[in-house]
Amino acid sequence: MLKVGIVGATGYTGVELLRLLAMHPQVEVRAVTSRKEAGKQLVELFPSLRGHYDLSFVNPDETPLDDCDLVFFATPNGTAMKMVRPLLEAGVRVIDLAADFRLRDAEVWSDWYGLEHACPDLLEEAVYGLPELNRQAIAGARLVANPGCYPTATALGLLPLVEAGGLVDADHLIADCKSGVSGAGRKAQLPTLFSEAEENFNAYGVAGHRHLPEIRQTLGQAAGHPVGLTFVPHLTPMIRGIHATLYARLLDTEADLQGLFEARYRDEPFVDVLPEGTHPQTRGVRGINTCRIAVHRPQGGEQVVVLSVIDNLVKGAAGQAIQNMNIMFGLDERLGLDQPALLP
Amino acid sequence: MLKVGIVGATGYTGVELLRLLAMHPQVEVRAVTSRKEAGKQLVELFPSLRGHYDLSFVNPDETPLDDCDLVFFATPNGTAMKMVRPLLEAGVRVIDLAADFRLRDAEVWSDWYGLEHACPDLLEEAVYGLPELNRQAIAGARLVANPGCYPTATALGLLPLVEAGGLVDADHLIADCKSGVSGAGRKAQLPTLFSEAEENFNAYGVAGHRHLPEIRQTLGQAAGHPVGLTFVPHLTPMIRGIHATLYARLLDTEADLQGLFEARYRDEPFVDVLPEGTHPQTRGVRGINTCRIAVHRPQGGEQVVVLSVIDNLVKGAAGQAIQNMNIMFGLDERLGLDQPALLP
Amino acid sequence: MLKVGIVGATGYTGVELLRLLAMHPQVEVRAVTSRKEAGKQLVELFPSLRGHYDLSFVNPDETPLDDCDLVFFATPNGTAMKMVRPLLEAGVRVIDLAADFRLRDAEVWSDWYGLEHACPDLLEEAVYGLPELNRQAIAGARLVANPGCYPTATALGLLPLVEAGGLVDADHLIADCKSGVSGAGRKAQLPTLFSEAEENFNAYGVAGHRHLPEIRQTLGQAAGHPVGLTFVPHLTPMIRGIHATLYARLLDTEADLQGLFEARYRDEPFVDVLPEGTHPQTRGVRGINTCRIAVHRPQGGEQVVVLSVIDNLVKGAAGQAIQNMNIMFGLDERLGLDQPALLP
Amino acid sequence: MLKVGIVGATGYTGVELLRLLAMHPQVEVRAVTSRKEAGKQLVELFPSLRGHYDLSFVNPDETPLDDCDLVFFATPNGTAMKMVRPLLEAGVRVIDLAADFRLRDAEVWSDWYGLEHACPDLLEEAVYGLPELNRQAIAGARLVANPGCYPTATALGLLPLVEAGGLVDADHLIADCKSGVSGAGRKAQLPTLFSEAEENFNAYGVAGHRHLPEIRQTLGQAAGHPVGLTFVPHLTPMIRGIHATLYARLLDTEADLQGLFEARYRDEPFVDVLPEGTHPQTRGVRGINTCRIAVHRPQGGEQVVVLSVIDNLVKGAAGQAIQNMNIMFGLDERLGLDQPALLP
Repeated sequence: MLKVGIVGATGYTGVELLRLLAMHPQVEVRAVTSRKEAGKQLVELFPSLRGHYDLSFVNPDETPLDDCDLVFFATPNGTAMKMVRPLLEAGVRVIDLAADFRLRDAEVWSDWYGLEHACPDLLEEAVYGLPELNRQAIAGARLVANPGCYPTATALGLLPLVEAGGLVDADHLIADCKSGVSGAGRKAQLPTLFSEAEENFNAYGVAGHRHLPEIRQTLGQAAGHPVGLTFVPHLTPMIRGIHATLYARLLDTEADLQGLFEARYRDEPFVDVLPEGTHPQTRGVRGINTCRIAVHRPQGGEQVVVLSVIDNLVKGAAGQAIQNMNIMFGLDERLGLDQPALLP
Repeated sequence: MLKVGIVGATGYTGVELLRLLAMHPQVEVRAVTSRKEAGKQLVELFPSLRGHYDLSFVNPDETPLDDCDLVFFATPNGTAMKMVRPLLEAGVRVIDLAADFRLRDAEVWSDWYGLEHACPDLLEEAVYGLPELNRQAIAGARLVANPGCYPTATALGLLPLVEAGGLVDADHLIADCKSGVSGAGRKAQLPTLFSEAEENFNAYGVAGHRHLPEIRQTLGQAAGHPVGLTFVPHLTPMIRGIHATLYARLLDTEADLQGLFEARYRDEPFVDVLPEGTHPQTRGVRGINTCRIAVHRPQGGEQVVVLSVIDNLVKGAAGQAIQNMNIMFGLDERLGLDQPALLP
Repeated sequence: MLKVGIVGATGYTGVELLRLLAMHPQVEVRAVTSRKEAGKQLVELFPSLRGHYDLSFVNPDETPLDDCDLVFFATPNGTAMKMVRPLLEAGVRVIDLAADFRLRDAEVWSDWYGLEHACPDLLEEAVYGLPELNRQAIAGARLVANPGCYPTATALGLLPLVEAGGLVDADHLIADCKSGVSGAGRKAQLPTLFSEAEENFNAYGVAGHRHLPEIRQTLGQAAGHPVGLTFVPHLTPMIRGIHATLYARLLDTEADLQGLFEARYRDEPFVDVLPEGTHPQTRGVRGINTCRIAVHRPQGGEQVVVLSVIDNLVKGAAGQAIQNMNIMFGLDERLGLDQPALLP
Repeated sequence: MLKVGIVGATGYTGVELLRLLAMHPQVEVRAVTSRKEAGKQLVELFPSLRGHYDLSFVNPDETPLDDCDLVFFATPNGTAMKMVRPLLEAGVRVIDLAADFRLRDAEVWSDWYGLEHACPDLLEEAVYGLPELNRQAIAGARLVANPGCYPTATALGLLPLVEAGGLVDADHLIADCKSGVSGAGRKAQLPTLFSEAEENFNAYGVAGHRHLPEIRQTLGQAAGHPVGLTFVPHLTPMIRGIHATLYARLLDTEADLQGLFEARYRDEPFVDVLPEGTHPQTRGVRGINTCRIAVHRPQGGEQVVVLSVIDNLVKGAAGQAIQNMNIMFGLDERLGLDQPALLP
């Protein structure tokens, strides 16, 4: 049994980790930390977990997590980078679900996150935890940066196109992305109140969103050269789900796009390429770690349209973190992640 | 492995059975039937099940289900009663998720369902599948009538009160119940369109709802005498969940209600009595087979208020059916039903 | 033109007042105050009002409202009672949409609101602004306490029953009420986040809610003696709407309930008694000042069930305030309030 | 007073016409027709209109509409083209809210709508009712083709760009559009059931949607030459609202885009260009005839992103029809359309 700790288990990615780990046959959650809730029973905060956990929140300053095999950070940005070094030195492996270790360049990180990075050396060591791109490096990593939700849906939808050099115009990619409200986290704030977000749809952050450099970095790595990307995120009135609608202009109009995507993801346990002509639904991946993708070429023209959906809290956060954990510890990658979606 | 068939697997209770059975380690689904969808792949209708089933719908007239150990009927009312006899005679056990075998009195059944009953003799044999009331009879039954969603939430909330003779005025019980829209089923109709049901709340069937005689029968059995009940169902704009708010007047104002409920359900795997002063949420049981109950006595007066929540598609339908199946075949009652709720 | 000011116009009742007043032909809004937003343009906070107002928020300490004919307080509880005296002394009439002047008994008020009352003498003068009960007193009032949302829906549904002495058992009334989330106001807090409130239903405050003494006071006034009431509020996942399901036991089983309700409300412009056997929908009053009521007697038994719906922000707050304003200033009571509901 | 008839008033555009016309001071609705509901009171079908109309549905075959000044067709596609000729010949003017007269080319119409066109000569006469493009022609028209919802939001967002020749690459425009569910109409069908559409987001019709040729025709007219457009519609879980996210590549990177849009729409009563850097919300136009637009150029690059929102039932249907009516009859264009949006 893997001994696991979760730092900052009071948000949506934290409770989702706990939901999924409760079904994992090889994991024992040893500690959940929260400065604010220290002493309170976990199930008091999350009654949905009654019967599954007998833990109380502990203060991370008072409870060393050194005896864990793995610690997940489900903390706000800027927290993990201050806490991981002693854990790594104690031999504990770490998966950070926040953004602290996602960008390789500390300066770019500072520009977008507005903080000085606390450990640029670890930035270099950290592995970007997108298994479909970096599986081997993840297996050997001490420190994994779990990808953001938009970057996961977008990268998986565009990877086959940009990896095939010369297939599309990689200087002018467009990612029009729609997210459920849980992506904004479990924190008291006006814009995500029910009465503000229900029966409403809007774009936000068009001028620049922190996931933009992350997506560019991933696609650039895959392409072997920098790519150009316009990224527009939107808020849609549902709890879970991301739908990325991706646009690229074809340079080679003879390409077999359906075949390309099917071949690229044939052996991937969590990427499901749909039959031609279909449209994935976000509810079809509600609660599961699957990314579903459909490739279209409207009217046989030169514009490729890729539709890519994930559950932002699972493949976009906690599920992908567990997938990474399975890889890091040599377990079957599907372990604990093989339930069907909750539908309706 | 239990060999299982599902008749009428195109509705919400059908797809929910399939979701839950995919996680059951002792069940193999052998056949799913639908006259309308015969020949179509199951995952074409329900892409959420991709990767979990390799079945196509078959026509029930052409595919005998005699080699199944158990057949679930997830059909509209009035269907199972015409099909179960040959199955039972072939030694197949049956759980009907519709209402055909829920009422013991064929005449009462006809009054409420507007049809002559096709097999009144089987009505007598059928066991009402509420494990918390009839566990032993279920274990030996050939034919189980799976309770309705409102009756499950209401009966579990009132059982401790009416079983304790003289505790409450059982002639004037009130069940004010609120249901998510999936309770109306997966059929094309105006009133449950998104644009009709969203941002709306209303009562319906106040003059009389088919679940009324069912609840009265169950409570009457538990009380040992007929009870009086006013039942008002409401539609609330969410997919899943039933919240029953139950009112009874105390005759014995010294009673320890919290203790009564905790004692009654101490050994029940799927009834969770909450601490005093709390309020269960329907989302806390989303996707799971648990019924959560809280007992209140506002201002210490003579009115008892019981709050009882279930997921109408799980404890109110498919989950309870699997619980019954586990009991009928001597399996651990929790098997396949031990995931945490999906929250948020 | 009436000159009107709004204190605390940054919440949902404030913006709803502004929406409705924009359609009122006899009102000019002179000032909107907010300490926090002072200096900011109104339409910057509420872009939905673009084109209708050219106002900026002003600090209430710096901008006297003495030149207004009427000031609405759309502030949190405990604010108006500290600010109204100088306004009244300057001849300005006041409608408080919060709870400061709703209870006649300062001690009861303190018990429920946890504050000492700042001006008990004004409590005695204030008129409870339910036009269907107190129209004449409202017409002459300097200070009107606008009723709460639950109390409006509940009182209008029960008034005909309790006014008719001896018709029902007024010691054991039950009000099972369901509210949309906007009733909780526009403030940053966890429980009303979209991802907390969506796809969820729960009761709250069963032990005691501040609207309980208010409803009891109103019904007691109408009955001529104290009444007994159990009040259970619930949160339902929609923005607007209250549905009150009201239960009373008939003492006189010969009564013509439908006739009673129709007669009681025949001349009321904003109470609409539906035909027998129907069920009002909250969406049918979305955005309008109407209360719709249906009376049922299930199975001809002794239990009366009244269904009463309002829009909590209109008849339950801003609309009723404008109705009161119209009465206070001798205008047609319907003025500015005669649009149809927004459906779907 | 204009005498108005509505053919097919049982759908969402019909009831929205009735809601808006109830507030129009110069219109009297004389007849509402429906073959299916003939004889039934209007308010029985739509209780939200109680108190506003005293009409019953009439059979269009039995009730000539010749005495109307104007007839609105709120019928399914293919209906109006069979019924308008005798009305026009009787001197009645017609606005069709369906698609029968939107495309000038009868062959293209047949290709997309799968029917032979019943009156190609009227196709030539019909005026496409987008006031911002064709105001003068609308004023004199006998027959107005009211634009589709997606085409309205998309065209208004792109017009300033394509009208300015050489400003953007008009061969590769992209319209990524999101619609509320009411756009699918009030008809019993599975995909728009609450339990199917709630908590879900998906694209549809990527291979080709009927609004594609309509948008191309409009933009082609504005540009003076054919344009290339990729159009991807999506369904989002809300009742009302369309959000068009529009992408175009700049050819002239010196252009003042904000100034261009402000100048283009300065005199338009129903197009509201937002300040730079903002994001319109669909709820901000809920129930009103305004189109709100914001123009962005992310990171100062060569990609223009235009955000354009409307209420699909108002500016995308009934409201625009009334705007057209006002223009046709020389009334103030704003008449009956000047309420603020319903928010929250």
